[in-house]
Amino acid sequence: MRVLVLGADGYLGWPTCLYFAGRGYDVIGVDNYFKRGAAAELDCEPLIPVPNLAERARIFKNASLKIHIGDVTDYGFLLFVFKEYMPDVVIHYAEQPSAPYSMLNRDKAAFTIQNNLISTLNIIHAVKETNPDCHIIKLGTMGEYGTPAIDIEEGWIEIGHKGRKDRFLFPRQASSLYHTTKIQDTDLLWFYVRTWNLRVTDLMQGPVYGIYYDDQRIDERLFPAFHYDEIFGTVVNRFIVQAIVNHPLTVYGEGGQTRGYLNLKDTMQCVYLAAENPPARGELRVFNQITETFTVNELAEKIQRVGDKIGLNVSINHIKNPRKEKEKHYYNPKYTGLLELGLKPHFLTDEALIEMLDVIKKYQKNIQPHKFLKGIKW
Amino acid sequence: MRVLVLGADGYLGWPTCLYFAGRGYDVIGVDNYFKRGAAAELDCEPLIPVPNLAERARIFKNASLKIHIGDVTDYGFLLFVFKEYMPDVVIHYAEQPSAPYSMLNRDKAAFTIQNNLISTLNIIHAVKETNPDCHIIKLGTMGEYGTPAIDIEEGWIEIGHKGRKDRFLFPRQASSLYHTTKIQDTDLLWFYVRTWNLRVTDLMQGPVYGIYYDDQRIDERLFPAFHYDEIFGTVVNRFIVQAIVNHPLTVYGEGGQTRGYLNLKDTMQCVYLAAENPPARGELRVFNQITETFTVNELAEKIQRVGDKIGLNVSINHIKNPRKEKEKHYYNPKYTGLLELGLKPHFLTDEALIEMLDVIKKYQKNIQPHKFLKGIKW
Repeated sequence: MRVLVLGADGYLGWPTCLYFAGRGYDVIGVDNYFKRGAAAELDCEPLIPVPNLAERARIFKNASLKIHIGDVTDYGFLLFVFKEYMPDVVIHYAEQPSAPYSMLNRDKAAFTIQNNLISTLNIIHAVKETNPDCHIIKLGTMGEYGTPAIDIEEGWIEIGHKGRKDRFLFPRQASSLYHTTKIQDTDLLWFYVRTWNLRVTDLMQGPVYGIYYDDQRIDERLFPAFHYDEIFGTVVNRFIVQAIVNHPLTVYGEGGQTRGYLNLKDTMQCVYLAAENPPARGELRVFNQITETFTVNELAEKIQRVGDKIGLNVSINHIKNPRKEKEKHYYNPKYTGLLELGLKPHFLTDEALIEMLDVIKKYQKNIQPHKFLKGIKW
Repeated sequence: MRVLVLGADGYLGWPTCLYFAGRGYDVIGVDNYFKRGAAAELDCEPLIPVPNLAERARIFKNASLKIHIGDVTDYGFLLFVFKEYMPDVVIHYAEQPSAPYSMLNRDKAAFTIQNNLISTLNIIHAVKETNPDCHIIKLGTMGEYGTPAIDIEEGWIEIGHKGRKDRFLFPRQASSLYHTTKIQDTDLLWFYVRTWNLRVTDLMQGPVYGIYYDDQRIDERLFPAFHYDEIFGTVVNRFIVQAIVNHPLTVYGEGGQTRGYLNLKDTMQCVYLAAENPPARGELRVFNQITETFTVNELAEKIQRVGDKIGLNVSINHIKNPRKEKEKHYYNPKYTGLLELGLKPHFLTDEALIEMLDVIKKYQKNIQPHKFLKGIKW
């Protein structure tokens, strides 16, 4: 089986390449290094230096991994890659992934729309043109659903209205431009699935935390890019780093915001399970890719408690919320689909947190607290 | 009051400029002539030659109409226009408006996405930057809703689910890439309305028919661009032209497709009523902009009957449907909002059809039947 990983340089893209290559897949990893450039521009480079993809592929020493540097929004380039490798599965991580980045200004917003939608459009057209049987796995986000007052189903809902009923995509309304482009991606995929009978899995993922999955532990040069900054970092990773340098954990507003979270190790499992169990032609299959839900306060208190246990002195600071979002709300998402496919969750246990704290402690000298807050508001 | 009309060269944009200028508004009309270029490229120019906007403004002789040629996706240009004129209302018609065009190939699809979404994004940012109180009127389409098995409400629906309930945008799933970009526009507007407290009206319009509104009858050089081709034409207009040249009316498939229609004269009324009655700040107000519903068969039979009455010999031909759409379906849209604002509908009466047939007859020598079907399939 041949898998094309788009966005192979990313926090999830790179471990996905290794995970599939280690399990008998031929892997083609593609990236345009957008995030490296943006991180340099915005002064928020990752905690641990990350060799370029070609260098990392050499360190990995696995002939089944090939790298191409190029832009998925360039249809000529993408079509070349599809024709050259004829993948059975394409995993689409090649999106601008940051909510704050998308809210910086008009140009970053326009870039986010163009990059995320044209990359998705190009993948759809390349699949149609070369092999309509190819399975597209797109990384969505739980953020597409927002925080509705009703239970969140896995992608679809039956609506009864005035004595009649029909089945629809679950209503989506996001709280950043970035998250909105993921809704627009879904609009795009769902249209072409119906029209061209494609085979698509949409993974509605919550915020991921973690440093690596087990096979990567051997060599720090194979760690994925670990961001702890306001722009590209995720909340658990940022809190872990803050705990190490005795910086108060920066809770936005009241901290009642509830989200579904998962370990990077489980992202690997989920994407792999999706690839191994493709949906039928003409199906847009949606999974909610989370393993447990927490409020931000619960996360902060957990990390405070575990940090104190290992001799750190962790404090919590509620700062003015730079985002427009509900700080207290109903939240009850369903997430059974991936469990039914065989997912074995790694929960956010004390041991998991201690493992992360231990690893990050080794890189304490790299931590730059000015990255925690860059002042992006909306 | 100052109104900025984006897409001022179009079938609806141009009469909108005249309609508002004739009713005391200062009007700034903007267009990039995209459709003129596309019509030349695809050999589907309008029935009656259309002078350029500057020329038409001279013919119109109304000092309150100003024209700027430029591209709304160019933020520098758009911001200049906003700063120069500080409009109270902006009417956004500056989108690639054709379903078949968007389905021609990957490049036309990418253009449709970029043009329609970046133009909308730019308008949002220009309003935010210059005057967040400015009322954005966006032309949506009834096609965003598709043909669900439940009644179509005006934009919003309350969903009850597992004993709880919430209010959402009415579910949308369209049957072309073009229509899908209009859904994505709505996603975009709804996000920024919530985030920046903007004031937006989304007019979910059905297929428009007609040649002019009354004030334009005086001079054919002031008629809007009248397309009867497969790409930019609408169904009633095409049937009228086909009836005149004794070409069988081209019904796609079974002809049970039901849509809501309205007269160009009513589009003018609707947009004007929306502008005169702005929504509150932070409100995305949605109107379903149609006055009656017909199946394609009903339209064809109506035109056949009326045509025969005035001595034409009209036949109907069911051709293989070039589109992927349901040919028989439930359809029950609500459209009371604009009536409540004061809309006085012009229905598709025999007299209305005879008036159209009479005007088109004068241009019979211009009609090119090869434009009826260009062979675009999806």
